[in-house]
Amino acid sequence: MIATPYRRRAFYYETDQMGIVHHANYIRWFEEARLDYMRQAGLVYSKMENAGILMPVTEVQSKFCAPIRFDETFEVVTRFARFNGVRAWYTYEIRSADTGALAVTGSSCHCFLDAATRRPINLKKQYPDFYETASAILRASQTEKEQA
Amino acid sequence: MIATPYRRRAFYYETDQMGIVHHANYIRWFEEARLDYMRQAGLVYSKMENAGILMPVTEVQSKFCAPIRFDETFEVVTRFARFNGVRAWYTYEIRSADTGALAVTGSSCHCFLDAATRRPINLKKQYPDFYETASAILRASQTEKEQA
Amino acid sequence: MIATPYRRRAFYYETDQMGIVHHANYIRWFEEARLDYMRQAGLVYSKMENAGILMPVTEVQSKFCAPIRFDETFEVVTRFARFNGVRAWYTYEIRSADTGALAVTGSSCHCFLDAATRRPINLKKQYPDFYETASAILRASQTEKEQA
Amino acid sequence: MIATPYRRRAFYYETDQMGIVHHANYIRWFEEARLDYMRQAGLVYSKMENAGILMPVTEVQSKFCAPIRFDETFEVVTRFARFNGVRAWYTYEIRSADTGALAVTGSSCHCFLDAATRRPINLKKQYPDFYETASAILRASQTEKEQA
Repeated sequence: MIATPYRRRAFYYETDQMGIVHHANYIRWFEEARLDYMRQAGLVYSKMENAGILMPVTEVQSKFCAPIRFDETFEVVTRFARFNGVRAWYTYEIRSADTGALAVTGSSCHCFLDAATRRPINLKKQYPDFYETASAILRASQTEKEQA
Repeated sequence: MIATPYRRRAFYYETDQMGIVHHANYIRWFEEARLDYMRQAGLVYSKMENAGILMPVTEVQSKFCAPIRFDETFEVVTRFARFNGVRAWYTYEIRSADTGALAVTGSSCHCFLDAATRRPINLKKQYPDFYETASAILRASQTEKEQA
Repeated sequence: MIATPYRRRAFYYETDQMGIVHHANYIRWFEEARLDYMRQAGLVYSKMENAGILMPVTEVQSKFCAPIRFDETFEVVTRFARFNGVRAWYTYEIRSADTGALAVTGSSCHCFLDAATRRPINLKKQYPDFYETASAILRASQTEKEQA
Repeated sequence: MIATPYRRRAFYYETDQMGIVHHANYIRWFEEARLDYMRQAGLVYSKMENAGILMPVTEVQSKFCAPIRFDETFEVVTRFARFNGVRAWYTYEIRSADTGALAVTGSSCHCFLDAATRRPINLKKQYPDFYETASAILRASQTEKEQA
């Protein structure tokens, strides 16, 4: 799947007194970008939650290479990296859209929970259609990567 | 009721690039202070929610007189100003604990909702015990104010 | 001036456990919308700060009529309401772009500070060109309102 | 150095619609805990910044094992893990103070920048006193770990 990078300006309230975006906000941008990526792939997370599936974050990693400043437009390239029905992995690259400079790289891991019981879900067993859809997105994503 | 002012340091991530606490955070401090005040008065909000009563904010006002800076200790004096079973009003004064200088004044108004139906609750009719408790806190708060 | 309303989706991290956008975030949305409005009017706030003029918030008011939910697209109509060279007033209306329902109304007041000294600025005296530009935007905004 | 764990309640506005603390907030808690740890060790970060040394985050990692909920008291145990004058590494463990259950583990890496030039600082060369102080804290921290 060829997704359009997620793109917006950095807000004033996202800065701190160092004069740059506070690092915890990049973790929030990962979320914004991931949900935008999923939407482009046809998986609208709000619908997933309404259908009873939660996808909480179990792990997150981030390297901060160069700061993003207030009013700067940034872009996030999200990749769906791995998926086995029990966990899903995403990677992120945040760049300044003004300069193209790499600002932040990162990754996140997610599990799936039943919204009612809060117990882990194995999508392959419990939601096979959803498992197939996600697997197809992963394959399309990998093909894209190989071609890039 | 004589409540101890709510007190903590300003966090680094609460500042913005002006080098002061971002104004939206004071609205969050009102919430921290209000829930602390309620707890001191014997009304633990997490228990209220568990019992099925939500208390969302319907209005908020704030004047920013002087900034609070990173690492500064601030104090919030909360007053329970008015209550009629359908709405509750609180007022707030945030001061620098270091200098005593007035930083922010504000107020908030709240209604009560049934957590399941999200419909308004009249506490006087539907939760008379809770209404009496809150009314007693209001009276104690007003007596304190007159004596001050 | 006829500004395009500010528009985006509500982020997941902007919700709280009531299942709606936390009220302090609407104050942040006012800021996003105000800076977008100013940009459309030709006043880019990041350039103002670079030129040494800060525009902090001195007052904010807000009424919460109906909640915005995760993933909902909202629109903010900002109006430049008053300006005298020492203070500027803005008003805001947030609506659900999906239903058109009014969600939040509010207003903010701002002063102007010298970035170096942090002392108040009277734009009329100290930055007459900027004062004229802002006054022209105000007049255009009022004409628009009368015609609406 | 034997530091007292950092401890407070989770705020309402830190939750999201999953009914738990949003994961980006744990990254903020790491910061709160780190600055508290440094203060206990005699290194007050606000004084460092005033003295012209910034300590931005260059990397952060986190595993989310169990959620913290609104109103729950949590504790963060911070360890000063490594330091070479150019970078400093910290690790964190967040536990529910109510149950003792491990909620989040994580680590962060930091560099040192000259506040004026924003260029990297080698503390060993440029601030030898500060380097010695930090090294002594590291040794004390390691001794404590061995004895634990």
